[in-house]
Amino acid sequence: MKVIRYLAHENQPAWGLLEEGSVFALMGSPFEAHGRGAAVGRLDEVTLLAPVAPSKVLCVGRNYAAHAAELGNEVPTEPLLFLKPPSSIIGPEESIRLTPLSEKVEHEGELVLVIGQRCRALTEENAMQVIFGYTCGNDVTARDLQRKDPQWTRGKGFDTFCPVGPWIISADEFDPTQAQVRTLVNGEVRQDGNTSLFIFSLPHLLSYITAVMTLEPGDIVMTGTPAGVGPLQAGDVVEVEVAGIGTLRNTVE
Amino acid sequence: MKVIRYLAHENQPAWGLLEEGSVFALMGSPFEAHGRGAAVGRLDEVTLLAPVAPSKVLCVGRNYAAHAAELGNEVPTEPLLFLKPPSSIIGPEESIRLTPLSEKVEHEGELVLVIGQRCRALTEENAMQVIFGYTCGNDVTARDLQRKDPQWTRGKGFDTFCPVGPWIISADEFDPTQAQVRTLVNGEVRQDGNTSLFIFSLPHLLSYITAVMTLEPGDIVMTGTPAGVGPLQAGDVVEVEVAGIGTLRNTVE
Repeated sequence: MKVIRYLAHENQPAWGLLEEGSVFALMGSPFEAHGRGAAVGRLDEVTLLAPVAPSKVLCVGRNYAAHAAELGNEVPTEPLLFLKPPSSIIGPEESIRLTPLSEKVEHEGELVLVIGQRCRALTEENAMQVIFGYTCGNDVTARDLQRKDPQWTRGKGFDTFCPVGPWIISADEFDPTQAQVRTLVNGEVRQDGNTSLFIFSLPHLLSYITAVMTLEPGDIVMTGTPAGVGPLQAGDVVEVEVAGIGTLRNTVE
Repeated sequence: MKVIRYLAHENQPAWGLLEEGSVFALMGSPFEAHGRGAAVGRLDEVTLLAPVAPSKVLCVGRNYAAHAAELGNEVPTEPLLFLKPPSSIIGPEESIRLTPLSEKVEHEGELVLVIGQRCRALTEENAMQVIFGYTCGNDVTARDLQRKDPQWTRGKGFDTFCPVGPWIISADEFDPTQAQVRTLVNGEVRQDGNTSLFIFSLPHLLSYITAVMTLEPGDIVMTGTPAGVGPLQAGDVVEVEVAGIGTLRNTVE
């Protein structure tokens, strides 16, 4: 099952289902009992929104050894958690806006997991069952501010710095343990990693996170970026591809 | 005007107005056109909830020089921003839950401001007009984890680590430039500061924050804690008092 959010009547966001290129209304919430409603149109006839509206965006830093090394950091012994504000989320085809406050805004393509139910204190054994599905994300980062500020809130938190999409693929149709994660800028591959290289597995991350905080349906966890991060310029087209999910495409302005 | 949230029929949260000890239903949203509805009862007859349900909780670190000094930090040259997850919020009289992951959970009493309208790119001149009102907050912190982790997300982010309340006092009835902020543990004054000692003023903070991210109605900004932070033990009663607002009281378990 592929779940989207799209712009419906009177520019209101609505949940939808994507089946072989056709969009149907989703009756109810994807995280509760729901059904397939009326046909809406072909995929290219609707405006996709970010397929999530989370109460929080959890992110994992340095979850690939090669990426930790390229920024001169040690491989962490525990997951490195941080938050992006929900206000930073944009959808497919929306523009990442550069800021005059930074001279080095970089892409970080990632696999994103979407939580399906309220949960806390998960064990590694029961963690995977709370995952509703997966999508692509870009943890856009003002690298100079990230390095300068004591906390990453500003460097990671600008409006438009969290593209997510294009859709959620449900957990039963995706294997997160060996997914290729690539980031392309203007068609050129910049990042190319595989989730089999994660330092911390998804069950470990979920157990670690929920020992601290309750996750809500629709919350997302950005699982870390592979090596190859680099700067974005106005006019660039940046694509995050996760094999088995699809491509999240954004322009830079 | 004093705005509360309380537990109404079928345990649903509802907005209310507090007038001379009596609670009235609030018709509509406090951030839009609204009116006073039916009488609900006396204040001591309702269960107060945190008077906010924000999309994000912005916090300011080291905004009092004496507090920066007590933790061995320099006085910052720019505001130090961080986020707490909304899942950490609790209301008046709810319990702060200690965690086995920390041996040093500390109180940080603070003045909290509540945003009344969507805003970004504020100037110092127009910033104050977006403030809906003020309340009290406790930025509960696992000091050992805050020191150990590269980011403060875990140390600041546990469930129950963000008590807020007891009500919002509207901006027209409160002067935030010279408010006494005290924290008491078991009746003993532990923190005692005055917002006139802020390193960064509220207009400066709002301008700085909204240069990065859009704020939404109901979002809160915790403005930093005065000197005197210290550990909490199970059984403690911790009170954050802001003169002109009221007292936020929580137990520790």
